[in-house]
Amino acid sequence: MDDASPSGGIEAGRAIPDHKPTVAVSMGDPLGIGAEVIVKSLADRPRRGRARWVVLGYASCLDAAARAAGIEPFWWIVPSGSPVLLEASGAHDVVVVDYARDASLTAVGPPDPSARGGGARATREGGEASFRFVEDAILAAKGRLPGLGPADAIVTGPINKEAWALAGRAEFPGHTELLAARFRGKRQRMMFVAPQLRTMLVTTHVPLSHVAGLLSLGRVLETIELAHEACVRLGVERPRVAVAGLNPHASEHGLFGDEEARVIEPAIALARQQGIDASGPHPGDTVFNAAVRGRFDIVVAMYHDQGLIPVKLLAFDRAVNYTAGLPAVRTSPDHGTAYDIAGRNAADPGSMAAAMDLALVFAAGR
Amino acid sequence: MDDASPSGGIEAGRAIPDHKPTVAVSMGDPLGIGAEVIVKSLADRPRRGRARWVVLGYASCLDAAARAAGIEPFWWIVPSGSPVLLEASGAHDVVVVDYARDASLTAVGPPDPSARGGGARATREGGEASFRFVEDAILAAKGRLPGLGPADAIVTGPINKEAWALAGRAEFPGHTELLAARFRGKRQRMMFVAPQLRTMLVTTHVPLSHVAGLLSLGRVLETIELAHEACVRLGVERPRVAVAGLNPHASEHGLFGDEEARVIEPAIALARQQGIDASGPHPGDTVFNAAVRGRFDIVVAMYHDQGLIPVKLLAFDRAVNYTAGLPAVRTSPDHGTAYDIAGRNAADPGSMAAAMDLALVFAAGR
Repeated sequence: MDDASPSGGIEAGRAIPDHKPTVAVSMGDPLGIGAEVIVKSLADRPRRGRARWVVLGYASCLDAAARAAGIEPFWWIVPSGSPVLLEASGAHDVVVVDYARDASLTAVGPPDPSARGGGARATREGGEASFRFVEDAILAAKGRLPGLGPADAIVTGPINKEAWALAGRAEFPGHTELLAARFRGKRQRMMFVAPQLRTMLVTTHVPLSHVAGLLSLGRVLETIELAHEACVRLGVERPRVAVAGLNPHASEHGLFGDEEARVIEPAIALARQQGIDASGPHPGDTVFNAAVRGRFDIVVAMYHDQGLIPVKLLAFDRAVNYTAGLPAVRTSPDHGTAYDIAGRNAADPGSMAAAMDLALVFAAGR
Repeated sequence: MDDASPSGGIEAGRAIPDHKPTVAVSMGDPLGIGAEVIVKSLADRPRRGRARWVVLGYASCLDAAARAAGIEPFWWIVPSGSPVLLEASGAHDVVVVDYARDASLTAVGPPDPSARGGGARATREGGEASFRFVEDAILAAKGRLPGLGPADAIVTGPINKEAWALAGRAEFPGHTELLAARFRGKRQRMMFVAPQLRTMLVTTHVPLSHVAGLLSLGRVLETIELAHEACVRLGVERPRVAVAGLNPHASEHGLFGDEEARVIEPAIALARQQGIDASGPHPGDTVFNAAVRGRFDIVVAMYHDQGLIPVKLLAFDRAVNYTAGLPAVRTSPDHGTAYDIAGRNAADPGSMAAAMDLALVFAAGR
């Protein structure tokens, strides 16, 4: 049935000038701040007009967020599973696919702001719903969401790992793993884009003691390649890719470890042979400063905290997470569900807005 | 002979009101920027007046730096090895112990600004001299530099590790190791003080793959204690000590490693039993942001880059290195010899000035 929805017909019915991109936005956990930051971000008319936004989630949550923020609803609602209605909705900038009557889900949310301690927490219902929204966003990117042509990008609202586990999805600790599974991706990498700094990680959610063992020439080289490619897609003509060392002072010629000489330097050399302007290994404690000062376009970091400490220090809740190496463009804000402030109109939409804007840039750069 | 110099007599001869502290300043490598940043820092009259500064180094280097900067020399020169002259120099704010005629050294410097490529490099002479200056600063702190009472603090100018190796001192990769050996220190820790952030490291110059193995309850606990103590000496009444996790997201309850549960949490619990306001383990990628926002007074970092990335990002060349756990106060600027710009009057004295100021604060807090 998925494949029965012809993309040509849908395109014809969209009546959108200038081939506006289509962006599938999964709302995230209905009890979190996802709906709120989406509403606030798309309340910006210029942003709204730059794409066709298909928001997958509960209309009731978006309504509640809009009411709390004093925003007039600007979206067109289509019930989930209505390919014909979704196809016909092509003239609208923002279409909400509403799962309120979806037989496979138990509707939940919006978050109750009057409840004590923030009112929201990880629930099975929230996990099931937010998982489904992402699944459908992935289908959209594959051109397999009935009634919709292939989406050019996915933006994912924040989910809760515990809620996914309660929903029986513990095998996916987060979006990245689910995306990798559904796209059969083998070399996806986490990239973070802050106004002052871009960084891509060689390794992510693994114990620090495993990092050295996971570094391989291929893995570092692939990350350098993906970092180069991502910058090109962002419009950087000849990206200067700085590669961080693993050890203190990048080991000072082997004084504090041999991973630089054994793995990182050869990977940089191979990348340079391919014409990539890669340099390093640079000491981890100074390379980010150099990048912020404009000496590099991106820093390849060896492990989670090495890359995330500078990003979160410079752009707390403002950075965007981009998944490099997937066939689809996917971005997400750099924050969680923030259950504690959900429903209170207190969420800052900055990171979600930046994620949407960045998705458009990547989509245009494909 | 060292012990023959009675501290009582020296004190009597100093004629300094209000018990001004004595600070021994080692000049660092004569071919680096040490002399320049010392001259520029002490050219500030209020700073000069707050202590008796005993600079151990080559007067010729200080002269050259002052000339290049258009600063009128403000110091009194005493040849090294002249206990009587040094003792008699007590009325001067700044006394330079000049090693130009020291029989054990081959005088070198000042750096030649006209030489290509910066003109300076690591040399045996530079290594021997800078090693000696630190040795004598340590003697001063022990009250064993003939002609001088016990110094209240040491401030060390930048040295070059390679130069020390050329001078046959390869067993000491840096100041910290030399200080530890001479003071027979067992629990000294590196602390960094930036205007916005303080951090202390549990481990320092070791391969990243060794870090997890080096973490022990005792080592983490000692660092928490020293971090607490250092903040108290800096005038923080009840220091809030944040302890970072080792793994991504502080391992999220064991998801990415067990060091948090096995080592860090018990150390925090023991510290709290002693009345220290320690908390954590906090995720490494958010704890520094929280500290910068004022939630904590110091962050205990598990390894070099975890602590140094935020420090260098926020306060490049402005942070001060403090060695906690020594019987003496010791600070140093957070930069190297910068051979490439030595002799050009291009060095920023900010970090040296901050190191001097911080030494005075620590000395007063003893």
